[in-house]
Amino acid sequence: MQFLTEKDIDYIAIGAAILGSGGGGDPYIGKLMAKQAIKEHGPVKFIEAGDVPDDALIIPSAMMGAPAVMIEKLPNGGEPAASFQSLEAYLGEKAYATISIEAGGINSCIPIYTAACLGIPLVDCDGMGRAFPELPMTTFSVSGVSSTPMVLCDEKGNKILLETIDNAWSETLARTTTVAMGLSSMIAIYCLTGKQLKDYAVKGTISQARAIGEKIMESNKSKTNPIQSILDITNGYQLFEGKIIDVQRDLTTGFVRGNVTIEGTDGNKGSSFSLDFQNENLLGMKDGKPAAITPDLITLLDREKGFPITTENIKYGQRVIVLGMPCDPFWRTEAGIKQVGPRYFKYDVDYVPIEELARESGK
Amino acid sequence: MQFLTEKDIDYIAIGAAILGSGGGGDPYIGKLMAKQAIKEHGPVKFIEAGDVPDDALIIPSAMMGAPAVMIEKLPNGGEPAASFQSLEAYLGEKAYATISIEAGGINSCIPIYTAACLGIPLVDCDGMGRAFPELPMTTFSVSGVSSTPMVLCDEKGNKILLETIDNAWSETLARTTTVAMGLSSMIAIYCLTGKQLKDYAVKGTISQARAIGEKIMESNKSKTNPIQSILDITNGYQLFEGKIIDVQRDLTTGFVRGNVTIEGTDGNKGSSFSLDFQNENLLGMKDGKPAAITPDLITLLDREKGFPITTENIKYGQRVIVLGMPCDPFWRTEAGIKQVGPRYFKYDVDYVPIEELARESGK
Repeated sequence: MQFLTEKDIDYIAIGAAILGSGGGGDPYIGKLMAKQAIKEHGPVKFIEAGDVPDDALIIPSAMMGAPAVMIEKLPNGGEPAASFQSLEAYLGEKAYATISIEAGGINSCIPIYTAACLGIPLVDCDGMGRAFPELPMTTFSVSGVSSTPMVLCDEKGNKILLETIDNAWSETLARTTTVAMGLSSMIAIYCLTGKQLKDYAVKGTISQARAIGEKIMESNKSKTNPIQSILDITNGYQLFEGKIIDVQRDLTTGFVRGNVTIEGTDGNKGSSFSLDFQNENLLGMKDGKPAAITPDLITLLDREKGFPITTENIKYGQRVIVLGMPCDPFWRTEAGIKQVGPRYFKYDVDYVPIEELARESGK
Repeated sequence: MQFLTEKDIDYIAIGAAILGSGGGGDPYIGKLMAKQAIKEHGPVKFIEAGDVPDDALIIPSAMMGAPAVMIEKLPNGGEPAASFQSLEAYLGEKAYATISIEAGGINSCIPIYTAACLGIPLVDCDGMGRAFPELPMTTFSVSGVSSTPMVLCDEKGNKILLETIDNAWSETLARTTTVAMGLSSMIAIYCLTGKQLKDYAVKGTISQARAIGEKIMESNKSKTNPIQSILDITNGYQLFEGKIIDVQRDLTTGFVRGNVTIEGTDGNKGSSFSLDFQNENLLGMKDGKPAAITPDLITLLDREKGFPITTENIKYGQRVIVLGMPCDPFWRTEAGIKQVGPRYFKYDVDYVPIEELARESGK
């Protein structure tokens, strides 16, 4: 039996933020919450999807909204359990375990926090294998699982239970409500049976995040470069190295939408890299040509320490490395590309796997 | 034991639209719904507040949103019962009866529809004695009753249950949701005990509406003028007579906000009347001086037949009579004026009862 301790939280938060593709929120707040909860309630039981009985109830726990506001609109700490338990009460059934809906800084930590507070296990999997901006962008949704009943809670004490006709309506209504709540909320969503979890979840995400985070922390101690280790764990590519010379960011619709321009340095001197994001990084263009396209993962790293930079923390002048990593094979199916491919986000390009783009650019 | 029949619906819809002070929606859709339900399920038991046991559960049933959209975004018919029964299920208790949350065309008819569909009585009272634009503007709210748990349903089949920390948050979250649902929803709200109903409701509103409607229909048959009868029943005043020469209307925030300018005819030749509304008529100015101020009632009538004109049906060129009527004494208390007086709506005037304004203008 494995357990997650305070030290694991540091690793997972960093690693999940790298898998988060710029989204999923700055891990700082979520990390503090999860560590405090483990300090109070003890380590969290960490199980594999295969250990979950087929008829068990699994309720993912997450934060919804623009991660940027979490920095100043702090949770009160009661919301994750409040939304989770309201949903249990509505269903008249206790959950067997919780999971991350996505791999991302805050949303890898919130379910650990919820698991610690409620004394239930966390399962080593998630619903994306990365982070995405909208509720229907889960392997569960694409596999036909309803996102509702779902519950949203805010830090003031307001609570909303949704029952919708489809997951697009959940996105519309939950997003609108989250914006009205002040751009962030804590949610319990996508109730799953153990069978559905085993069939549809992306497995091993949390332990992969932990392995990445551990490598980065170790490299920082030994003053070595962690990039190659990250590329090895994720089968990724270093796409670019440079200095951020422009950032455009807009918060008005409940998302952080924007674009960043990176001027090449070192091996990329004379080149330019443009990165579009909508909470998550979605399209990277090197000298006007696609270098990585959603649903493949694109992450900015601080060049010195290898720490991930989430979209709300991008700043002018940062020295960065752009990493590209292949997404879970689920997203490369026709249904996956339809839901999270470049055309869904209104980019006029077709999806090409990052391995192919890398091969082409290497010619 | 009294019952409401199809004929009563015609009377109540017209009379309530007059008490609705321009708001509460065009009665047309609600009337059709209530009459159809009575045709299918039989007349609705019509009881007095005094008949309700102190510990009975009363759930008001209403439509929320901009009445104007109801004309083209029709209800599917299942939403009022769906929201009502979801709330009953959540509370684990069946309701004894339903009531109107406000006097207004559509919101006098929706609870009759719900009562007919569910086979429960309608109580002769409401929570305003008129119509108002926001959820906390009820005698219940000002008396400390929580608007939540409440349920909103749309015609597509989406359902939302709210638990808020106060009625202002209910307004914010339910309004935002209603806008996202397409500007209208059907709600079950302000669960009351029989005791609270007896203590706080405005009594006799529905029978008063019926009496007004009956007078207007009779006058139309006998080709006589109904205005004096309306003034007698409501203790009201004829404030102006004229032709509409300008209407400004904006729907973007989930309300119908606007202003209408009336050029005097007949006895008011040479004078001008300006009327501001936000779903309901809120401030009437005759030649630049207040003639009627919220919470007193202001209603436009079609000059020919005496039918009420709700704010979404105001049109250039209409010949109208402006009626002013005193509100329920509850609203003239300090707490009442704070919640629904002119300064709440950002008008820079103090409330003066319509009787005083009439006396002054008569000097």
